[in-house]
Amino acid sequence: MDLTPQHGGDIYHFAQLLGCTPSEIIDLSSNINFIRPNITLDCNQLDIAPYPNYQQLEDAIAQRYDITPDRLELFNGATTAIYTLFRMLDPSDITLYAPLYGEYHRATKAQGANLHLINRLKHPTPPIENSLVVFVNPSTPDGSYHHIEVLIEEWIRHQCTILIDESFLDFTPYRSAIAYLEQYDKLYILKSMTKFYSAAGMRIGLLISTPNNIQQIKAHEPLWKISQFDSHYLQSALSDPLFIKRTHLLTQKSRDFLIQILKKLPYIETIYPSDANYLLIKLRGVEATTLQKALMPYKIMIRNCENFDFLDARFVRIAIKEISSLKKLEHALCEISI
Amino acid sequence: MDLTPQHGGDIYHFAQLLGCTPSEIIDLSSNINFIRPNITLDCNQLDIAPYPNYQQLEDAIAQRYDITPDRLELFNGATTAIYTLFRMLDPSDITLYAPLYGEYHRATKAQGANLHLINRLKHPTPPIENSLVVFVNPSTPDGSYHHIEVLIEEWIRHQCTILIDESFLDFTPYRSAIAYLEQYDKLYILKSMTKFYSAAGMRIGLLISTPNNIQQIKAHEPLWKISQFDSHYLQSALSDPLFIKRTHLLTQKSRDFLIQILKKLPYIETIYPSDANYLLIKLRGVEATTLQKALMPYKIMIRNCENFDFLDARFVRIAIKEISSLKKLEHALCEISI
Repeated sequence: MDLTPQHGGDIYHFAQLLGCTPSEIIDLSSNINFIRPNITLDCNQLDIAPYPNYQQLEDAIAQRYDITPDRLELFNGATTAIYTLFRMLDPSDITLYAPLYGEYHRATKAQGANLHLINRLKHPTPPIENSLVVFVNPSTPDGSYHHIEVLIEEWIRHQCTILIDESFLDFTPYRSAIAYLEQYDKLYILKSMTKFYSAAGMRIGLLISTPNNIQQIKAHEPLWKISQFDSHYLQSALSDPLFIKRTHLLTQKSRDFLIQILKKLPYIETIYPSDANYLLIKLRGVEATTLQKALMPYKIMIRNCENFDFLDARFVRIAIKEISSLKKLEHALCEISI
Repeated sequence: MDLTPQHGGDIYHFAQLLGCTPSEIIDLSSNINFIRPNITLDCNQLDIAPYPNYQQLEDAIAQRYDITPDRLELFNGATTAIYTLFRMLDPSDITLYAPLYGEYHRATKAQGANLHLINRLKHPTPPIENSLVVFVNPSTPDGSYHHIEVLIEEWIRHQCTILIDESFLDFTPYRSAIAYLEQYDKLYILKSMTKFYSAAGMRIGLLISTPNNIQQIKAHEPLWKISQFDSHYLQSALSDPLFIKRTHLLTQKSRDFLIQILKKLPYIETIYPSDANYLLIKLRGVEATTLQKALMPYKIMIRNCENFDFLDARFVRIAIKEISSLKKLEHALCEISI
């Protein structure tokens, strides 16, 4: 098995390799919220024959993020939103604040734009004038929220078009950059709904911008693109009044527990601060693949971060999951000798 | 209400206008199979947290159409497949055999290609050399299957790239053009899964071509794009062993019944032959909008075909639905005076 795939979460392949079922895998490689929203919908009762209409879903999302519905456009997953926006903007230069997930590299390549990388873990250099800048906040694989006020001012000064990916922001107590739309219209906020709402099998992502920008996007979009099942799942999830608080509390509890486990290990050099539902770890004297292989008999998947920009073979990302899964990780880490 | 919208099936708007619920509407304006597959899946039991994998769905579809899975690519609806293919092929000229649904015009416009229209209801003229030809078989709004052997030879002679949309072919007893892939590789077959499988709220479409062409398409596609709910719905639908036969039998029965109703009306000039689940009708001495308005108090929607190429204000399309709905249409047609 390729231990450095472009994505975490390929439980099917991992299970096949171990000769078990995907449901037996403890997946600490992907960033899906381990808390599930309380879904009151009876999916079997849904009439999916008619052509769908997304107004109720759009209204529910708009209410959640305190915007008017004309400021958002739905997509069949955040990846589709990225490709669509890149195509529409068609920038000659794209500045990615890295490390960040691989999808942005692929979309930049598909668009044929010049790629510029800025290391956001160090003191960032200025962006290319007029370029499209992409900043994921909090980003993966580290998960720390960046206070980007100074950066935003710099981007505006350089007349950049700005894409801020806030797919993991809902895990944090911090405010969205949506407010900047009042003063700068070359700004887009992207959100994947699959991570926080614990449903990678549901394909819904969205872009938020000015009504004008959204209208321009809509002109090239198909009328129907979201599954009615997905739409109803998300509406039901959005109406769970305790879900956000529950996620914050339980993620914090599990994060603290995971940090306690990791702190005891002699081969861990750094645990990076994280506001999201995963931790980036720099190993000492051992490589990511060694740790991955050692955890395989325990059916535990973690994410090798070797293929992230500015990182190397010593970095792994571990998802914050329910305490019971983390206890299994703790047990495995006690037993293995690396 | 705009009585000549680009699509049928906007039951929400129609219901709002009538002050009733969408479920009260008798929708004879859209082409969704009125027979539902027998779905054995318990949708509420589905674990949608993990990242999806489409292998089982691809295998099931490949088996259904008697191809290997490397000959197909899934899309979030047929419309997305059209836009993606047009973008990849980037043809300077696109020849549409019209009338056909509006999506192809919009995709041609979005692509910035030259548009050529050929009237397939008359003796068709030769296509533009090297162009991308699009033929929907059977097409809407008439639904008659075309024996296109001669046309295919002509397209090959003119070195055209060929897109045959067979979204309604499953309603007919005729064979797919897939077999031509053995002799010509600039050929793509498109299928919407929403019409025949009675689920416009499920967003799955597919392209079938050579393994090489499919690989080229895959290179620009996101890894995840199909809802797990939709994937399971379709797998369940595909495994209903009697669904195809049931659809053919009941559609034929309803088609005959609808033709009997329409034949009695003095203001109908032509009922076009149809192999699909809808009938194109040319009115005499009365306009489509007049008939539409007259049926509104009965909560019946039909499709005005004025905005189809080569048709005019005298054409309507009526969907073939269950006998009970058609009886309500019959009753309404008896009562109205136009």
